[in-house]
Formats: sequence, structure tokens, C-alpha cells
Amino acid sequence: MQLYSYFRSSAAYRVRIALNLKGLPYETVPVHLLKDGGQQLAPAYRELNPSALVPTLVNGDLALGQSLAIIEYLDETHPQAPLLPSDPAGRARVRAIAQSIACDLHPLNNLRVLKYLKHEMKVEEEAKNAWYRHWVRVGLDSLEAMLANSPQTGRFCHGDAPTLADLCLVPQLYNARRFDCDLSGVPTLVRIDEACRALPAFDAAAPEKQPDAQ
Amino acid sequence: MQLYSYFRSSAAYRVRIALNLKGLPYETVPVHLLKDGGQQLAPAYRELNPSALVPTLVNGDLALGQSLAIIEYLDETHPQAPLLPSDPAGRARVRAIAQSIACDLHPLNNLRVLKYLKHEMKVEEEAKNAWYRHWVRVGLDSLEAMLANSPQTGRFCHGDAPTLADLCLVPQLYNARRFDCDLSGVPTLVRIDEACRALPAFDAAAPEKQPDAQ
Repeated sequence: MQLYSYFRSSAAYRVRIALNLKGLPYETVPVHLLKDGGQQLAPAYRELNPSALVPTLVNGDLALGQSLAIIEYLDETHPQAPLLPSDPAGRARVRAIAQSIACDLHPLNNLRVLKYLKHEMKVEEEAKNAWYRHWVRVGLDSLEAMLANSPQTGRFCHGDAPTLADLCLVPQLYNARRFDCDLSGVPTLVRIDEACRALPAFDAAAPEKQPDAQ
Repeated sequence: MQLYSYFRSSAAYRVRIALNLKGLPYETVPVHLLKDGGQQLAPAYRELNPSALVPTLVNGDLALGQSLAIIEYLDETHPQAPLLPSDPAGRARVRAIAQSIACDLHPLNNLRVLKYLKHEMKVEEEAKNAWYRHWVRVGLDSLEAMLANSPQTGRFCHGDAPTLADLCLVPQLYNARRFDCDLSGVPTLVRIDEACRALPAFDAAAPEKQPDAQ
């Protein structure tokens, strides 16, 4: 398998953790989001992934976009180290946590959005950073409420083994730290993030450990 | 089951279609996103759904947020009229189409985002509308490329029966029309949307048919 990836992309980071947890070997194909005006916008990449976003997982003839869809595909085709609970209610909870990050929080702070705010809307740097921190705070506060108040939260987001939810949480907290967001109000998230990053599969997926890291 | 819903919420619209396709009776509990400063922000609703977004599906003791997680839960617990293909590659394709809308396009044009642009960033009406149309165009163009070039696209997004992908497409095109977005470049999406809306399950889920429509 080849993973078209950018070291700092949090969507690619999620998939790297999944591949590592399942012990699946893969080749990294770097797609630099800033060089050459954005290598993800090149026609050859768009042919592989019309949304012009990373990651893309290539497995033989199959080219898959969208990190959550890729992870569920890996989970269905390589059931060892399952990334979703076995009961429908638990699966719904894990997917909802993951989607709170992947559908509500992350898209607003994606590179292309920050670029639009700066270049098209001519928003000042300070207002752009306020935007970033606003959505991080709103998103993480609601996640903290979901997790801190649930008896289903364990060492990880759902029980005592990592799931799809943790694969989304860790890259999101990496981004939050990178942009100096205040994490003092989200102790449950910080605790789970630390437990995850202590695992080799999470550690090896970190941006600074990637072949394209700079 | 109760669905906490707002007639114009496209995430709630997706779930309404799923419930109708599966023939599951439910009670609508209206959550008005504009009245009372936003009824979704009320403490009682936040207790049910800490993200303060609609929809929430309540089934006995279970309160579920996130439209895609809810729909997969319904699909797993009520397998008739399946909303995902049976093969992993097909499931990944359907999920990726759905997530292209739910993770990449829709979050940028959500009500809370438009409110932030207007009230916090003090963006002019015209620039706000340009933002809206920009993300609709980027999102729908990439979806059109995904669908028009695939032999797996049929009468619907994936083959000849509606799936999770169609449940996301129809509310997104409803929004695009409401905001006068140009749909001339996306004939495949328009064709599939029409095929969907001809089905009673989609028709009954339309915003103007809801008890809280105004």
C-alpha cells in the first residue's frame, strides 16, 4: 500500500496511526501542501483524488480518499487490533467522537481555509489566529464534556483500547499545541492524548518522524 | 425514537431520509437554531448533545449526535433497505463521497460559521456570500469529478439504490439552490439529486414538509 501523505496533515496522521496499530507496512508518497503552489493541486494527484486533499491510500487498483473512510476500510479488511467496538451503540459513540473532530472542528482550520481567509478575505493575521483558536476551543470543550461525563470513557476515548476516536484526537491536539491553544480546560483530552502517545504506533506516526518532515 | 431536528439543518435532513427509507417511525422534537438566541445552545439540549448541534437521535437511554454516526447506527440495527454496499471497497467509496460533503464542504457553510464571519470578523454580506459559494463550488466540482468518472456511479451515487452518499448529496444541493449557487457545472449531481427526490422517502424528509417548517 502507498499512502499519499503530508507530515503535518492531521488527516494523514490519523491514517498513519491506523496502519501502525494494525502492523500494516506501507510506503509514504509525500505530497507537499506548500511547495509548487501545493502539490495536492497537481493534475496527476487530482486524478487519484479529485478533492485535491491528502491523504490518499492506494491499494492495488483502489485509490481511497477521506481519512475516516480509509480507516474503516482498513478495519474491515484487517480486523486485527479493531478500531471500532463490537456493539452498535459503542460504534456510534466512537464514530460520533471522531466526527466531532473530523466534521466539526478540523475542517474550519484546514490549510486551504486559512489561506482563503488570508488571501481572499484579506483578514489580518491576528483575526485569523483568533478564528483558529475559537474553533479549537469550541470543539475541544464539547469533546471534553462528551468524554469527561461518560462512564464509557476509559484509559482511551472508549474503554481501554485505542479506537478511531483516539486516532482523531491525537492529531487534533498536536495541531492545538502547534498553534498555542490553551488546553488547561480539557484535562480528560490531555490525559488520553498522553496515554495514546506512549504507544509506539502513535509515536511512529507523529509528524516529526515522517520521511517528508522538515 | 425522537429526532431533535431543525427543518433547514442539512445534517438533520440526512437522518430524516434514513429513517424514512427504513420505514422507522419517529417523533420530531424541534430545536430552533435562530429563536431564543439558538435553542441548541440551551443547557438542557447541551446535556443531551454537548456539541450543541442538531440532530440528536434519542432511542431509549441512548442519545446520539453526528448525522453520519446516527445513520450507520440505524443501518446496523435495522438492516432492511441497506444504506451501505456489502463490499469493503464499495463501503469505502460511499463513505468517502458522504464525507466529502459532511467533512469538507458542509462544515464551512454551517450557520455558526456564517454567524462568526458576520459578528466576530465583521465581514460584509457580499464577502460572506462569496465565501459560501466558493466552498460550494470547490466541493461540488470535486464531487462531480468523483461521480462522473466512475463506472460505479449508477442511477444514484453508488449503483442503483440510494446509499449514505445520496443522503448527504440531496440536502447539500438543497442548500446550494437556496443560496443561488450555480449548478450548471455539475450535471451528474443534479441528475442523481432529481432521481432521489422522486422517491417518497426523500420527499417526505424535505425541509418544507417538516412540522417545524416556517
